[in-house]
Amino acid sequence: MFVSSRTPLSSVARTQFLEAKGGARYAYRRFGSGSDLPLLLLQHFTGTLDNWDPGLTDALAAERELILFDNAGVGRSSGTVPTTVAGMAQHVVTFLDGLGVNACDVLGFSLGGMIAQQMVLDRPPIFRRLILVGTAPRGGEDIMHLEKPRLAKHLQDPSNKGYGVLQKIFFTLTATGQEAGASFVERLAERSDDRDGVSGPGVANAQMAAFREWERFTGERFAELYTIVHPTLVVNGVHDEMIPIANSYRLVENLPNAVLLAYPDAGHGSLFQYHESFARQAAAFLSSSSESAVY
Amino acid sequence: MFVSSRTPLSSVARTQFLEAKGGARYAYRRFGSGSDLPLLLLQHFTGTLDNWDPGLTDALAAERELILFDNAGVGRSSGTVPTTVAGMAQHVVTFLDGLGVNACDVLGFSLGGMIAQQMVLDRPPIFRRLILVGTAPRGGEDIMHLEKPRLAKHLQDPSNKGYGVLQKIFFTLTATGQEAGASFVERLAERSDDRDGVSGPGVANAQMAAFREWERFTGERFAELYTIVHPTLVVNGVHDEMIPIANSYRLVENLPNAVLLAYPDAGHGSLFQYHESFARQAAAFLSSSSESAVY
Repeated sequence: MFVSSRTPLSSVARTQFLEAKGGARYAYRRFGSGSDLPLLLLQHFTGTLDNWDPGLTDALAAERELILFDNAGVGRSSGTVPTTVAGMAQHVVTFLDGLGVNACDVLGFSLGGMIAQQMVLDRPPIFRRLILVGTAPRGGEDIMHLEKPRLAKHLQDPSNKGYGVLQKIFFTLTATGQEAGASFVERLAERSDDRDGVSGPGVANAQMAAFREWERFTGERFAELYTIVHPTLVVNGVHDEMIPIANSYRLVENLPNAVLLAYPDAGHGSLFQYHESFARQAAAFLSSSSESAVY
Repeated sequence: MFVSSRTPLSSVARTQFLEAKGGARYAYRRFGSGSDLPLLLLQHFTGTLDNWDPGLTDALAAERELILFDNAGVGRSSGTVPTTVAGMAQHVVTFLDGLGVNACDVLGFSLGGMIAQQMVLDRPPIFRRLILVGTAPRGGEDIMHLEKPRLAKHLQDPSNKGYGVLQKIFFTLTATGQEAGASFVERLAERSDDRDGVSGPGVANAQMAAFREWERFTGERFAELYTIVHPTLVVNGVHDEMIPIANSYRLVENLPNAVLLAYPDAGHGSLFQYHESFARQAAAFLSSSSESAVY
């Protein structure tokens, strides 16, 4: 099957560091090959370079170059975690400028999807195609309220150690969902050295402030989405408890050029649960040369 | 491009007639080839065999056998149009039994998608995989209210002749939507003989009664969907005015094994507007041997 035949690029790619303008130092990994534009991956709440499922990134890297990135104050990147999505977006722009990448595609997951939207509003030519997974537009609803009983129960359970908590909150509690979650946790442990540290409460608190700010809007709700004409693929698990799928519905209803793909029996981590399908769909979407998102 | 290279099977396939148990006579067309199960196509409100876009059916028929069907009282099928979806579903079952087809896949569009759901509830083994396009679950909302101003305007406009009205109500009013609609209308006219007649008010009134009955529910709303474990692909245009996409959201939220694919800048006729993409996605979905809908 797929897992046994994949080239383990993700687990061996070295972490690199970029010294950027203004003295910032950003940690990243760059691997994979292909003649297409590179794909920038923007990570979820408290996630580091080591929270990307190697099952997914190996599959994506078979067809194109990937750039994994630690935002300021996360993992081994220097600086302070911004308390707004706009602040985080500015760091990604500084990083890409420093790297000399002036055009790429982007896969933004959760918080990373908000950053991707902000970046494309700030500087439209920066991305060619967008993949937004388990994320929300500005003014979205019920974004990362970890105090909800369904989530708090697992976050406060001391028996959920390390990545184990992700198995509970990123996946449905069905047998198939939990089996997929256990496999995901195993894959995250494949890398044996050169790993980022685990994010602490400082990272979590600043990012949580950014979510609260992102829920606010002024003027006509979702109006800024009308201006994003980039081909966009929106992906969500139907039973996402962290950022409910209604947010993805609002994205495709207001973005003029966005396809929605929703996965059954899946929560926030749908892209990891169905990493083979997701990589196939993403490759088909990214390799299209149409101006339309439809693939 | 695709259109110039397709084999025009749909426009030349002869209409056949099946004399079924109880004296009914059903009109159908059967064409295409492939080793997979045949795909049964169930049609929309007032639609006949000649309302299937040959651009779509030629693409689907390249990989599998298709069966197009006129329900009782529609096109050249005998009998009276039932006033319930359940009554229509019974005719399809009688037809398949008469044809000796005891297993197939189904593509149900709009009214046809409701019939497909009812059939799979009545006789679960009848279908292997379901594709439900622009349709609604029992108890859905705002199903085919043609009196709404956005729709009534076009239906009552005498300048919209023949299929021209479909260009206005199946497609968005954007330039790209209307261009796709005009191409669709041209493709519908490709067939030059052996055509069904156009449905009259008797067909429309009975089918409209079936929509009103389908909006009603008793007990827990959508609960019957939990029991449909068949792999299902749900497809909808984001801006469907005839059966709004919220109905497709409810389908995938309650069906345990359904993927949603939503198309941008598209209305009720999304499968015709994006017939090349739709045929590609449908083929990928139908050719999967997994128990999961995910492809």
